[in-house]
Amino acid sequence: MNLHQYLKERSEQVDAALDRYLPPLDAVPQRLHEAIRYSVLAPGKRLRPILVLASAEAVGGKPETVMPTACALECIHVFSLIHDDLPCMDDDDYRRGRLTNHKVFGEAMAMLAGDALQALAFELIADNAAVVAPDRVVAVIKRIANAAGTWGMVGGQVVDIESEGKDISAETLQYIHAHKTGALLTASVLAGAILCGADAAQQQALERYGRSIGLAFQIADDILDIVGDQEKIGKPVGSDEGKDKATYPKLYGLEESRRRAHAEVASAVASLEGFGEAAEPLRAIARYIVERDL
Amino acid sequence: MNLHQYLKERSEQVDAALDRYLPPLDAVPQRLHEAIRYSVLAPGKRLRPILVLASAEAVGGKPETVMPTACALECIHVFSLIHDDLPCMDDDDYRRGRLTNHKVFGEAMAMLAGDALQALAFELIADNAAVVAPDRVVAVIKRIANAAGTWGMVGGQVVDIESEGKDISAETLQYIHAHKTGALLTASVLAGAILCGADAAQQQALERYGRSIGLAFQIADDILDIVGDQEKIGKPVGSDEGKDKATYPKLYGLEESRRRAHAEVASAVASLEGFGEAAEPLRAIARYIVERDL
Repeated sequence: MNLHQYLKERSEQVDAALDRYLPPLDAVPQRLHEAIRYSVLAPGKRLRPILVLASAEAVGGKPETVMPTACALECIHVFSLIHDDLPCMDDDDYRRGRLTNHKVFGEAMAMLAGDALQALAFELIADNAAVVAPDRVVAVIKRIANAAGTWGMVGGQVVDIESEGKDISAETLQYIHAHKTGALLTASVLAGAILCGADAAQQQALERYGRSIGLAFQIADDILDIVGDQEKIGKPVGSDEGKDKATYPKLYGLEESRRRAHAEVASAVASLEGFGEAAEPLRAIARYIVERDL
Repeated sequence: MNLHQYLKERSEQVDAALDRYLPPLDAVPQRLHEAIRYSVLAPGKRLRPILVLASAEAVGGKPETVMPTACALECIHVFSLIHDDLPCMDDDDYRRGRLTNHKVFGEAMAMLAGDALQALAFELIADNAAVVAPDRVVAVIKRIANAAGTWGMVGGQVVDIESEGKDISAETLQYIHAHKTGALLTASVLAGAILCGADAAQQQALERYGRSIGLAFQIADDILDIVGDQEKIGKPVGSDEGKDKATYPKLYGLEESRRRAHAEVASAVASLEGFGEAAEPLRAIARYIVERDL
Protein backbone atom coordinates (compact mmCIF):
# COMPACT_ATOMS: atom_id res chain seq x y z
CA MET A 1 0.00 0.00 0.00
CA ASN A 2 0.99 3.64 -0.51
CA LEU A 3 1.25 4.89 3.07
CA HIS A 4 2.07 8.45 2.05
CA GLN A 5 -1.15 8.63 0.02
CA TYR A 6 -3.13 6.95 2.81
CA LEU A 7 -1.89 9.37 5.47
CA LYS A 8 -2.57 12.35 3.22
CA GLU A 9 -6.16 11.30 2.48
CA ARG A 10 -6.95 10.40 6.06
CA SER A 11 -5.45 13.55 7.54
CA GLU A 12 -7.42 15.67 5.07
CA GLN A 13 -10.61 13.86 6.12
CA VAL A 14 -9.73 14.45 9.77
CA ASP A 15 -8.98 18.14 9.17
CA ALA A 16 -12.30 18.61 7.40
CA ALA A 17 -14.15 16.85 10.23
CA LEU A 18 -12.33 18.86 12.92
CA ASP A 19 -13.33 22.05 11.13
CA ARG A 20 -16.99 20.91 11.28
CA TYR A 21 -16.87 19.74 14.92
CA LEU A 22 -14.93 22.61 16.49
CA PRO A 23 -16.94 25.58 17.82
CA PRO A 24 -17.41 28.13 15.01
CA LEU A 25 -15.64 31.48 14.99
CA ASP A 26 -18.89 33.42 14.87
CA ALA A 27 -20.22 31.94 18.13
CA VAL A 28 -19.63 33.45 21.59
CA PRO A 29 -17.04 33.44 23.09
CA GLN A 30 -15.27 34.07 19.79
CA ARG A 31 -11.79 34.61 21.21
CA LEU A 32 -11.92 31.18 22.89
CA HIS A 33 -12.97 29.55 19.64
CA GLU A 34 -10.15 31.34 17.83
CA ALA A 35 -7.71 29.99 20.41
CA ILE A 36 -9.10 26.46 20.10
CA ARG A 37 -8.97 26.51 16.31
CA TYR A 38 -5.51 28.09 16.25
CA SER A 39 -4.00 25.08 17.97
CA VAL A 40 -6.20 22.21 16.78
CA LEU A 41 -6.12 23.21 13.12
CA ALA A 42 -2.38 23.91 13.10
CA PRO A 43 -0.68 21.53 10.66
CA GLY A 44 -0.10 18.20 12.36
CA LYS A 45 0.31 14.51 11.61
CA ARG A 46 -3.11 13.60 13.08
CA LEU A 47 -1.53 10.34 14.24
CA ARG A 48 -4.12 9.60 16.95
CA PRO A 49 -7.22 10.16 14.78
CA ILE A 50 -5.66 8.19 11.93
CA LEU A 51 -4.99 5.30 14.33
CA VAL A 52 -8.68 5.35 15.30
CA LEU A 53 -9.71 5.21 11.65
CA ALA A 54 -7.13 2.55 10.74
CA SER A 55 -8.07 0.28 13.65
CA ALA A 56 -11.75 0.57 12.69
CA GLU A 57 -10.74 -0.62 9.22
CA ALA A 58 -8.58 -3.40 10.65
CA VAL A 59 -11.63 -5.07 12.24
CA GLY A 60 -13.85 -4.57 9.19
CA GLY A 61 -15.51 -1.26 10.13
CA LYS A 62 -16.00 1.87 8.07
CA PRO A 63 -13.65 4.71 9.06
CA GLU A 64 -16.33 7.40 8.66
CA THR A 65 -18.36 5.68 11.39
CA VAL A 66 -15.75 6.55 14.02
CA MET A 67 -14.81 10.06 12.83
CA PRO A 68 -16.23 11.90 15.90
CA THR A 69 -14.12 9.73 18.21
CA ALA A 70 -11.07 10.11 15.94
CA CYS A 71 -11.39 13.90 16.24
CA ALA A 72 -11.93 13.62 19.99
CA LEU A 73 -8.51 11.99 20.34
CA GLU A 74 -6.92 14.91 18.50
CA CYS A 75 -8.75 17.34 20.83
CA ILE A 76 -7.32 15.58 23.88
CA HIS A 77 -3.84 15.50 22.37
CA VAL A 78 -3.92 19.21 21.50
CA PHE A 79 -5.36 20.15 24.90
CA SER A 80 -2.37 18.45 26.51
CA LEU A 81 0.06 20.28 24.21
CA ILE A 82 -1.49 23.68 25.00
CA HIS A 83 -1.26 23.06 28.75
CA ASP A 84 2.23 21.55 28.43
CA ASP A 85 3.51 24.71 26.76
CA LEU A 86 2.29 27.09 29.49
CA PRO A 87 4.85 29.02 31.54
CA CYS A 88 4.07 26.97 34.68
CA MET A 89 4.90 23.80 32.71
CA ASP A 90 7.48 23.65 29.88
CA ASP A 91 7.25 27.38 29.10
CA ASP A 92 7.63 26.89 25.36
CA ASP A 93 7.23 29.72 22.84
CA TYR A 94 6.95 27.55 19.74
CA ARG A 95 5.00 24.44 18.81
CA ARG A 96 4.65 22.87 15.38
CA GLY A 97 6.66 25.83 14.08
CA ARG A 98 4.18 28.49 15.28
CA LEU A 99 3.88 30.57 18.42
CA THR A 100 2.33 28.56 21.24
CA ASN A 101 -1.28 29.22 22.19
CA HIS A 102 -0.57 31.31 25.28
CA LYS A 103 1.93 33.49 23.41
CA VAL A 104 -0.90 34.51 21.08
CA PHE A 105 -4.00 34.40 23.30
CA GLY A 106 -2.61 34.79 26.81
CA GLU A 107 -2.27 32.25 29.60
CA ALA A 108 -5.85 32.34 30.88
CA MET A 109 -7.32 31.81 27.43
CA ALA A 110 -4.84 29.02 26.65
CA MET A 111 -5.69 27.19 29.85
CA LEU A 112 -9.42 27.54 29.20
CA ALA A 113 -9.02 26.46 25.56
CA GLY A 114 -7.39 23.27 26.84
CA ASP A 115 -10.16 22.72 29.38
CA ALA A 116 -12.84 23.26 26.73
CA LEU A 117 -11.09 20.86 24.36
CA GLN A 118 -11.12 18.07 26.91
CA ALA A 119 -14.85 18.58 27.47
CA LEU A 120 -15.48 18.74 23.72
CA ALA A 121 -13.63 15.45 23.27
CA PHE A 122 -16.04 13.57 25.51
CA GLU A 123 -19.02 15.28 23.91
CA LEU A 124 -17.80 14.11 20.49
CA ILE A 125 -17.36 10.51 21.62
CA ALA A 126 -20.86 10.58 23.11
CA ASP A 127 -22.11 11.92 19.76
CA ASN A 128 -20.69 8.80 18.15
CA ALA A 129 -23.63 6.93 19.70
CA ALA A 130 -25.76 8.28 16.83
CA VAL A 131 -24.25 5.53 14.63
CA VAL A 132 -22.68 3.08 17.12
CA ALA A 133 -24.28 0.97 19.90
CA PRO A 134 -24.15 2.91 23.20
CA ASP A 135 -22.47 0.11 25.18
CA ARG A 136 -19.49 0.33 22.83
CA VAL A 137 -19.42 4.12 23.17
CA VAL A 138 -19.41 3.87 26.95
CA ALA A 139 -16.55 1.35 26.85
CA VAL A 140 -14.54 3.74 24.68
CA ILE A 141 -15.25 6.75 26.92
CA LYS A 142 -14.11 4.77 29.96
CA ARG A 143 -10.93 3.73 28.19
CA ILE A 144 -10.07 7.18 26.85
CA ALA A 145 -10.88 8.98 30.10
CA ASN A 146 -8.65 6.51 31.91
CA ALA A 147 -5.84 7.09 29.40
CA ALA A 148 -6.15 10.89 29.65
CA GLY A 149 -6.05 11.22 33.44
CA THR A 150 -3.82 10.19 36.31
CA TRP A 151 -3.62 6.57 35.09
CA GLY A 152 -2.30 7.77 31.75
CA MET A 153 -1.32 11.06 30.16
CA VAL A 154 -1.52 13.39 33.18
CA GLY A 155 0.17 10.82 35.42
CA GLY A 156 3.02 10.59 32.94
CA GLN A 157 3.35 14.37 32.75
CA VAL A 158 3.58 14.63 36.53
CA VAL A 159 6.33 12.03 36.78
CA ASP A 160 8.10 13.68 33.84
CA ILE A 161 8.10 17.04 35.65
CA GLU A 162 9.19 15.45 38.91
CA SER A 163 12.11 13.79 37.11
CA GLU A 164 13.56 16.96 35.57
CA GLY A 165 17.15 17.51 36.59
CA LYS A 166 17.38 14.09 38.27
CA ASP A 167 19.09 10.87 37.32
CA ILE A 168 16.22 8.54 36.67
CA SER A 169 16.00 4.79 36.45
CA ALA A 170 15.04 2.81 33.35
CA GLU A 171 11.77 1.95 35.11
CA THR A 172 10.87 5.60 35.60
CA LEU A 173 11.67 6.44 31.98
CA GLN A 174 9.50 3.52 30.89
CA TYR A 175 6.71 4.74 33.19
CA ILE A 176 6.85 8.27 31.76
CA HIS A 177 6.71 7.13 28.16
CA ALA A 178 4.05 4.46 28.68
CA HIS A 179 1.82 6.97 30.44
CA LYS A 180 2.55 10.38 28.93
CA THR A 181 2.14 9.37 25.29
CA GLY A 182 1.65 5.59 25.19
CA ALA A 183 -1.68 5.42 27.01
CA LEU A 184 -3.48 7.77 24.63
CA LEU A 185 -1.98 6.10 21.54
CA THR A 186 -3.14 2.69 22.79
CA ALA A 187 -6.56 4.11 23.61
CA SER A 188 -6.77 5.52 20.07
CA VAL A 189 -6.05 2.13 18.55
CA LEU A 190 -8.56 0.40 20.82
CA ALA A 191 -11.27 3.03 20.34
CA GLY A 192 -11.73 2.48 16.62
CA ALA A 193 -11.74 -1.29 17.07
CA ILE A 194 -14.17 -1.33 20.03
CA LEU A 195 -16.60 0.98 18.24
CA CYS A 196 -16.58 -1.38 15.25
CA GLY A 197 -17.22 -4.49 17.31
CA ALA A 198 -13.76 -6.00 17.86
CA ASP A 199 -13.87 -9.19 19.92
CA ALA A 200 -11.76 -9.71 23.07
CA ALA A 201 -8.87 -11.41 21.21
CA GLN A 202 -8.71 -8.61 18.66
CA GLN A 203 -8.74 -6.01 21.42
CA GLN A 204 -5.86 -7.74 23.19
CA ALA A 205 -3.82 -7.89 19.99
CA LEU A 206 -4.50 -4.22 19.26
CA GLU A 207 -3.60 -3.27 22.81
CA ARG A 208 -0.21 -4.94 22.35
CA TYR A 209 0.17 -3.17 19.00
CA GLY A 210 -0.70 0.16 20.64
CA ARG A 211 1.80 -0.29 23.45
CA SER A 212 4.59 -1.16 21.06
CA ILE A 213 4.06 1.72 18.66
CA GLY A 214 3.62 4.08 21.60
CA LEU A 215 7.02 3.15 22.94
CA ALA A 216 8.63 3.13 19.48
CA PHE A 217 7.16 6.54 18.81
CA GLN A 218 8.54 8.02 22.00
CA ILE A 219 12.02 6.57 21.51
CA ALA A 220 11.98 7.90 17.94
CA ASP A 221 10.96 11.33 19.24
CA ASP A 222 13.80 11.31 21.75
CA ILE A 223 16.24 10.40 18.98
CA LEU A 224 14.88 13.04 16.60
CA ASP A 225 15.29 15.62 19.32
CA ILE A 226 19.02 14.95 19.07
CA VAL A 227 19.61 14.17 15.40
CA GLY A 228 16.59 15.71 13.65
CA ASP A 229 16.29 19.18 12.24
CA GLN A 230 14.13 21.87 13.77
CA GLU A 231 11.90 22.26 10.74
CA LYS A 232 10.80 18.64 10.79
CA ILE A 233 10.03 18.36 14.49
CA GLY A 234 8.66 21.90 14.90
CA LYS A 235 10.66 22.75 18.00
CA PRO A 236 14.30 23.60 18.66
CA VAL A 237 16.58 20.56 18.35
CA GLY A 238 18.00 19.58 21.70
CA SER A 239 15.19 21.31 23.61
CA ASP A 240 14.59 18.24 25.79
CA GLU A 241 18.25 17.92 26.70
CA GLY A 242 18.44 21.61 27.52
CA LYS A 243 15.78 21.03 30.18
CA ASP A 244 17.63 18.01 31.47
CA LYS A 245 14.70 15.76 30.60
CA ALA A 246 14.89 12.01 30.80
CA THR A 247 15.32 10.49 27.33
CA TYR A 248 16.16 7.10 25.85
CA PRO A 249 19.42 8.20 24.19
CA LYS A 250 20.59 9.66 27.49
CA LEU A 251 19.94 6.40 29.30
CA TYR A 252 20.87 3.85 26.62
CA GLY A 253 22.87 5.74 24.00
CA LEU A 254 21.81 6.44 20.42
CA GLU A 255 22.54 3.03 18.89
CA GLU A 256 20.76 0.97 21.54
CA SER A 257 17.82 3.41 21.38
CA ARG A 258 17.56 2.89 17.61
CA ARG A 259 17.68 -0.88 18.11
CA ARG A 260 14.89 -0.74 20.69
CA ALA A 261 12.68 1.44 18.49
CA HIS A 262 13.02 -1.09 15.64
CA ALA A 263 12.35 -4.01 17.97
CA GLU A 264 9.13 -2.40 19.21
CA VAL A 265 7.97 -1.84 15.62
CA ALA A 266 8.65 -5.49 14.79
CA SER A 267 6.68 -6.54 17.82
CA ALA A 268 3.80 -4.21 16.88
CA VAL A 269 3.60 -5.75 13.42
CA ALA A 270 3.77 -9.26 14.92
CA SER A 271 0.76 -8.45 17.15
CA LEU A 272 -1.34 -8.05 14.00
CA GLU A 273 -0.62 -11.56 12.70
CA GLY A 274 -4.23 -12.67 13.02
CA PHE A 275 -5.50 -9.68 11.04
CA GLY A 276 -5.76 -9.73 7.26
CA GLU A 277 -5.25 -7.22 4.51
CA ALA A 278 -7.48 -4.70 6.31
CA ALA A 279 -4.77 -4.16 8.94
CA GLU A 280 -2.21 -3.14 6.33
CA PRO A 281 -2.50 0.59 7.21
CA LEU A 282 -1.76 -0.20 10.88
CA ARG A 283 1.32 -2.22 9.86
CA ALA A 284 2.53 0.54 7.56
CA ILE A 285 2.05 3.17 10.27
CA ALA A 286 4.13 1.12 12.69
CA ARG A 287 6.99 0.83 10.19
CA TYR A 288 6.75 4.52 9.33
CA ILE A 289 7.50 5.52 12.94
CA VAL A 290 11.12 4.39 12.69
CA GLU A 291 11.59 5.52 9.13
CA ARG A 292 11.50 9.21 10.02
CA ASP A 293 15.26 9.84 9.54
CA LEU A 294 16.27 8.16 12.79
CA MET B 1 -38.85 17.36 55.64
CA ASN B 2 -35.73 18.19 57.62
CA LEU B 3 -33.46 19.67 54.96
CA HIS B 4 -30.54 20.16 57.32
CA GLN B 5 -30.57 16.45 58.18
CA TYR B 6 -31.03 15.49 54.51
CA LEU B 7 -28.08 17.61 53.36
CA LYS B 8 -25.89 16.27 56.15
CA GLU B 9 -26.63 12.63 55.33
CA ARG B 10 -26.26 13.07 51.61
CA SER B 11 -23.03 15.05 51.82
CA GLU B 12 -21.56 12.40 54.12
CA GLN B 13 -22.49 9.73 51.59
CA VAL B 14 -20.92 11.80 48.81
CA ASP B 15 -17.74 12.38 50.84
CA ALA B 16 -17.40 8.65 51.52
CA ALA B 17 -17.93 7.83 47.84
CA LEU B 18 -15.45 10.50 46.72
CA ASP B 19 -12.87 9.02 49.06
CA ARG B 20 -13.42 5.62 47.40
CA TYR B 21 -13.40 6.93 43.81
CA LEU B 22 -10.46 9.34 44.00
CA PRO B 23 -6.99 7.96 43.20
CA PRO B 24 -5.40 6.61 46.39
CA LEU B 25 -2.50 8.34 48.12
CA ASP B 26 -0.28 5.28 47.87
CA ALA B 27 -0.47 5.12 44.06
CA VAL B 28 1.95 6.87 41.68
CA PRO B 29 2.05 9.82 41.16
CA GLN B 30 1.40 10.37 44.85
CA ARG B 31 1.87 14.12 44.87
CA LEU B 32 -0.79 14.51 42.17
CA HIS B 33 -3.21 12.39 44.18
CA GLU B 34 -2.47 14.47 47.27
CA ALA B 35 -3.26 17.61 45.28
CA ILE B 36 -6.49 16.12 43.93
CA ARG B 37 -7.65 14.96 47.36
CA TYR B 38 -6.63 18.22 49.02
CA SER B 39 -9.14 20.17 46.94
CA VAL B 40 -11.91 17.64 46.35
CA LEU B 41 -12.12 16.49 49.96
CA ALA B 42 -11.97 20.03 51.38
CA PRO B 43 -15.20 20.74 53.26
CA GLY B 44 -17.89 21.80 50.81
CA LYS B 45 -21.64 21.86 50.35
CA ARG B 46 -21.58 19.12 47.67
CA LEU B 47 -24.48 20.94 46.03
CA ARG B 48 -24.00 19.41 42.56
CA PRO B 49 -23.72 15.77 43.69
CA ILE B 50 -26.68 16.23 46.04
CA LEU B 51 -28.73 17.62 43.15
CA VAL B 52 -27.88 14.48 41.15
CA LEU B 53 -29.04 12.26 44.03
CA ALA B 54 -32.15 14.32 44.74
CA SER B 55 -33.26 14.39 41.10
CA ALA B 56 -32.79 10.62 40.89
CA GLU B 57 -35.14 10.35 43.89
CA ALA B 58 -37.59 12.82 42.34
CA VAL B 59 -38.26 10.45 39.42
CA GLY B 60 -38.45 7.34 41.61
CA GLY B 61 -34.82 6.18 41.35
CA LYS B 62 -32.45 5.07 44.09
CA PRO B 63 -29.78 7.67 44.92
CA GLU B 64 -27.04 5.06 45.34
CA THR B 65 -27.52 4.05 41.69
CA VAL B 66 -26.22 7.41 40.49
CA MET B 67 -23.43 7.97 43.02
CA PRO B 68 -20.55 7.71 40.48
CA THR B 69 -22.14 10.43 38.36
CA ALA B 70 -22.90 12.53 41.45
CA CYS B 71 -19.21 12.41 42.38
CA ALA B 72 -18.22 13.18 38.78
CA LEU B 73 -20.09 16.48 38.99
CA GLU B 74 -18.13 17.41 42.10
CA CYS B 75 -14.89 16.53 40.29
CA ILE B 76 -15.78 18.88 37.43
CA HIS B 77 -16.78 21.63 39.84
CA VAL B 78 -13.56 21.33 41.85
CA PHE B 79 -11.41 21.14 38.70
CA SER B 80 -12.92 24.48 37.63
CA LEU B 81 -12.23 26.00 41.05
CA ILE B 82 -8.58 24.90 41.02
CA HIS B 83 -8.02 26.37 37.55
CA ASP B 84 -10.01 29.53 38.43
CA ASP B 85 -7.73 30.20 41.38
CA LEU B 86 -4.48 30.03 39.38
CA PRO B 87 -2.36 33.19 39.02
CA CYS B 88 -3.21 33.47 35.31
CA MET B 89 -6.91 33.52 36.23
CA ASP B 90 -8.28 34.99 39.50
CA ASP B 91 -4.98 34.58 41.37
CA ASP B 92 -6.65 33.66 44.67
CA ASP B 93 -4.73 32.49 47.72
CA TYR B 94 -7.69 31.11 49.66
CA ARG B 95 -10.66 28.90 48.81
CA ARG B 96 -13.15 27.40 51.21
CA GLY B 97 -11.04 28.88 54.02
CA ARG B 98 -7.85 27.00 53.05
CA LEU B 99 -4.87 27.85 50.88
CA THR B 100 -5.67 27.31 47.22
CA ASN B 101 -4.29 24.24 45.46
CA HIS B 102 -1.44 26.00 43.65
CA LYS B 103 -0.31 27.76 46.85
CA VAL B 104 0.31 24.32 48.36
CA PHE B 105 1.29 22.16 45.38
CA GLY B 106 2.58 24.68 42.83
CA GLU B 107 1.01 25.88 39.61
CA ALA B 108 1.98 22.96 37.38
CA MET B 109 0.58 20.40 39.80
CA ALA B 110 -2.61 22.41 40.32
CA MET B 111 -3.21 22.65 36.60
CA LEU B 112 -2.59 18.94 36.12
CA ALA B 113 -4.79 18.06 39.11
CA GLY B 114 -7.61 19.96 37.41
CA ASP B 115 -6.96 18.20 34.10
CA ALA B 116 -6.92 14.80 35.79
CA LEU B 117 -10.16 15.59 37.63
CA GLN B 118 -11.99 16.37 34.41
CA ALA B 119 -10.84 13.06 32.91
CA LEU B 120 -11.77 11.20 36.11
CA ALA B 121 -15.26 12.73 35.97
CA PHE B 122 -16.00 11.17 32.58
CA GLU B 123 -14.50 7.88 33.66
CA LEU B 124 -16.83 7.84 36.68
CA ILE B 125 -19.91 8.56 34.59
CA ALA B 126 -18.92 5.77 32.19
CA ASP B 127 -18.54 3.49 35.23
CA ASN B 128 -22.17 4.21 36.05
CA ALA B 129 -23.05 1.93 33.11
CA ALA B 130 -22.39 -1.01 35.44
CA VAL B 131 -25.85 -0.38 36.93
CA VAL B 132 -27.60 1.86 34.38
CA ALA B 133 -28.50 1.29 30.70
CA PRO B 134 -25.67 2.55 28.47
CA ASP B 135 -27.91 4.75 26.30
CA ARG B 136 -28.82 6.77 29.39
CA VAL B 137 -25.17 7.02 30.40
CA VAL B 138 -24.21 8.31 26.95
CA ALA B 139 -27.00 10.92 27.08
CA VAL B 140 -25.69 12.11 30.45
CA ILE B 141 -22.07 12.28 29.26
CA LYS B 142 -23.14 14.33 26.26
CA ARG B 143 -25.10 16.69 28.46
CA ILE B 144 -22.38 17.12 31.09
CA ALA B 145 -19.56 17.50 28.56
CA ASN B 146 -21.61 20.16 26.81
CA ALA B 147 -22.23 21.96 30.12
CA ALA B 148 -18.53 21.83 31.10
CA GLY B 149 -17.04 23.22 27.88
CA THR B 150 -17.42 26.26 25.69
CA TRP B 151 -21.24 25.98 25.60
CA GLY B 152 -21.33 26.09 29.38
CA MET B 153 -18.86 26.56 32.20
CA VAL B 154 -15.70 27.43 30.26
CA GLY B 155 -17.64 29.72 27.92
CA GLY B 156 -19.02 31.56 30.95
CA GLN B 157 -15.56 31.88 32.49
CA VAL B 158 -14.16 33.39 29.30
CA VAL B 159 -16.90 36.02 29.06
CA ASP B 160 -16.49 36.72 32.78
CA ILE B 161 -12.77 37.39 32.33
CA GLU B 162 -13.39 39.50 29.22
CA SER B 163 -15.91 41.59 31.17
CA GLU B 164 -13.61 42.50 34.04
CA GLY B 165 -13.24 46.23 34.44
CA LYS B 166 -15.96 46.94 31.87
CA ASP B 167 -19.53 48.19 32.16
CA ILE B 168 -21.53 45.20 31.05
CA SER B 169 -25.12 44.85 29.92
CA ALA B 170 -27.82 42.86 31.70
CA GLU B 171 -27.64 40.35 28.82
CA THR B 172 -23.94 39.75 29.34
CA LEU B 173 -24.37 39.29 33.09
CA GLN B 174 -27.17 36.82 32.39
CA TYR B 175 -24.93 35.00 29.90
CA ILE B 176 -22.08 34.73 32.39
CA HIS B 177 -24.26 33.34 35.17
CA ALA B 178 -26.26 30.98 32.97
CA HIS B 179 -23.04 29.52 31.56
CA LYS B 180 -20.40 29.76 34.28
CA THR B 181 -22.44 28.13 37.05
CA GLY B 182 -25.95 27.55 35.68
CA ALA B 183 -25.10 25.04 32.98
CA LEU B 184 -23.40 22.58 35.33
CA LEU B 185 -26.12 22.90 37.98
CA THR B 186 -28.79 22.18 35.34
CA ALA B 187 -26.73 19.26 34.02
CA SER B 188 -26.50 17.89 37.59
CA VAL B 189 -30.27 17.98 38.00
CA LEU B 190 -30.84 16.36 34.61
CA ALA B 191 -28.15 13.71 35.09
CA GLY B 192 -29.78 12.00 38.06
CA ALA B 193 -33.18 12.06 36.37
CA ILE B 194 -31.97 10.78 32.98
CA LEU B 195 -30.02 7.93 34.59
CA CYS B 196 -33.18 6.90 36.45
CA GLY B 197 -35.39 6.92 33.35
CA ALA B 198 -37.10 10.34 33.44
CA ASP B 199 -39.44 10.88 30.48
CA ALA B 200 -39.23 13.92 28.18
CA ALA B 201 -41.76 15.98 30.15
CA GLN B 202 -39.96 15.32 33.43
CA GLN B 203 -36.65 16.26 31.85
CA GLN B 204 -38.10 19.56 30.60
CA ALA B 205 -39.52 20.38 34.02
CA LEU B 206 -36.21 19.57 35.70
CA GLU B 207 -34.32 21.63 33.15
CA ARG B 208 -36.51 24.65 34.06
CA TYR B 209 -35.92 23.89 37.75
CA GLY B 210 -32.17 23.69 37.16
CA ARG B 211 -32.03 26.99 35.29
CA SER B 212 -33.98 28.79 37.98
CA ILE B 213 -31.96 27.53 40.93
CA GLY B 214 -28.76 28.17 38.99
CA LEU B 215 -29.67 31.80 38.54
CA ALA B 216 -31.00 32.14 42.12
CA PHE B 217 -27.81 30.60 43.40
CA GLN B 218 -25.61 33.02 41.51
CA ILE B 219 -27.60 36.09 42.53
CA ALA B 220 -27.44 34.88 46.13
CA ASP B 221 -23.69 34.42 45.83
CA ASP B 222 -23.29 37.95 44.47
CA ILE B 223 -25.35 39.30 47.40
CA LEU B 224 -23.42 37.26 49.97
CA ASP B 225 -20.20 38.63 48.55
CA ILE B 226 -21.42 42.04 49.72
CA VAL B 227 -23.38 41.34 52.88
CA GLY B 228 -22.07 37.93 54.02
CA ASP B 229 -19.24 37.23 56.37
CA GLN B 230 -15.94 35.80 55.27
CA GLU B 231 -16.20 32.67 57.36
CA LYS B 232 -19.45 31.56 55.74
CA ILE B 233 -18.44 32.08 52.14
CA GLY B 234 -14.81 31.00 52.54
CA LYS B 235 -13.30 33.95 50.71
CA PRO B 236 -12.80 37.61 51.54
CA VAL B 237 -16.06 39.60 51.49
CA GLY B 238 -16.09 42.06 48.61
CA SER B 239 -13.49 40.08 46.66
CA ASP B 240 -15.62 40.19 43.49
CA GLU B 241 -16.09 43.93 43.71
CA GLY B 242 -12.39 44.44 44.29
CA LYS B 243 -11.76 42.83 40.92
CA ASP B 244 -14.45 44.96 39.32
CA LYS B 245 -16.45 41.86 38.42
CA ALA B 246 -19.95 42.03 37.04
CA THR B 247 -22.53 41.24 39.73
CA TYR B 248 -26.29 41.47 40.15
CA PRO B 249 -26.20 44.01 43.02
CA LYS B 250 -23.95 46.25 40.95
CA LEU B 251 -26.37 46.18 38.05
CA TYR B 252 -29.74 46.10 39.82
CA GLY B 253 -29.06 47.13 43.41
CA LEU B 254 -29.35 44.95 46.50
CA GLU B 255 -33.15 45.02 46.93
CA GLU B 256 -34.01 44.21 43.33
CA SER B 257 -31.38 41.44 43.37
CA ARG B 258 -33.01 39.92 46.46
CA ARG B 259 -36.42 40.11 44.78
CA ARG B 260 -35.09 38.36 41.68
CA ALA B 261 -33.45 35.58 43.67
CA HIS B 262 -36.74 34.88 45.45
CA ALA B 263 -38.67 34.99 42.18
CA GLU B 264 -36.34 32.40 40.63
CA VAL B 265 -36.77 30.12 43.63
CA ALA B 266 -40.57 30.39 43.35
CA SER B 267 -40.34 29.54 39.68
CA ALA B 268 -38.05 26.57 40.41
CA VAL B 269 -40.57 25.18 42.90
CA ALA B 270 -43.41 25.78 40.43
CA SER B 271 -41.55 23.71 37.80
CA LEU B 272 -41.87 20.68 40.05
CA GLU B 273 -45.68 20.84 40.23
CA GLY B 274 -46.15 17.54 38.45
CA PHE B 275 -43.78 15.73 40.82
CA GLY B 276 -44.98 14.21 44.09
CA GLU B 277 -43.55 13.81 47.54
CA ALA B 278 -40.32 12.37 46.07
CA ALA B 279 -39.33 15.81 44.78
CA GLU B 280 -39.55 17.37 48.26
CA PRO B 281 -35.73 17.46 48.65
CA LEU B 282 -35.41 19.38 45.36
CA ARG B 283 -38.04 21.89 46.54
CA ALA B 284 -36.33 22.31 49.90
CA ILE B 285 -32.93 22.82 48.24
CA ALA B 286 -34.40 25.56 46.04
CA ARG B 287 -35.82 27.40 49.06
CA TYR B 288 -32.58 26.95 50.99
CA ILE B 289 -30.64 28.91 48.37
CA VAL B 290 -32.26 32.21 49.33
CA GLU B 291 -32.36 31.45 53.04
CA ARG B 292 -28.61 31.78 53.46
CA ASP B 293 -28.69 35.16 55.25
CA LEU B 294 -29.37 37.16 52.11
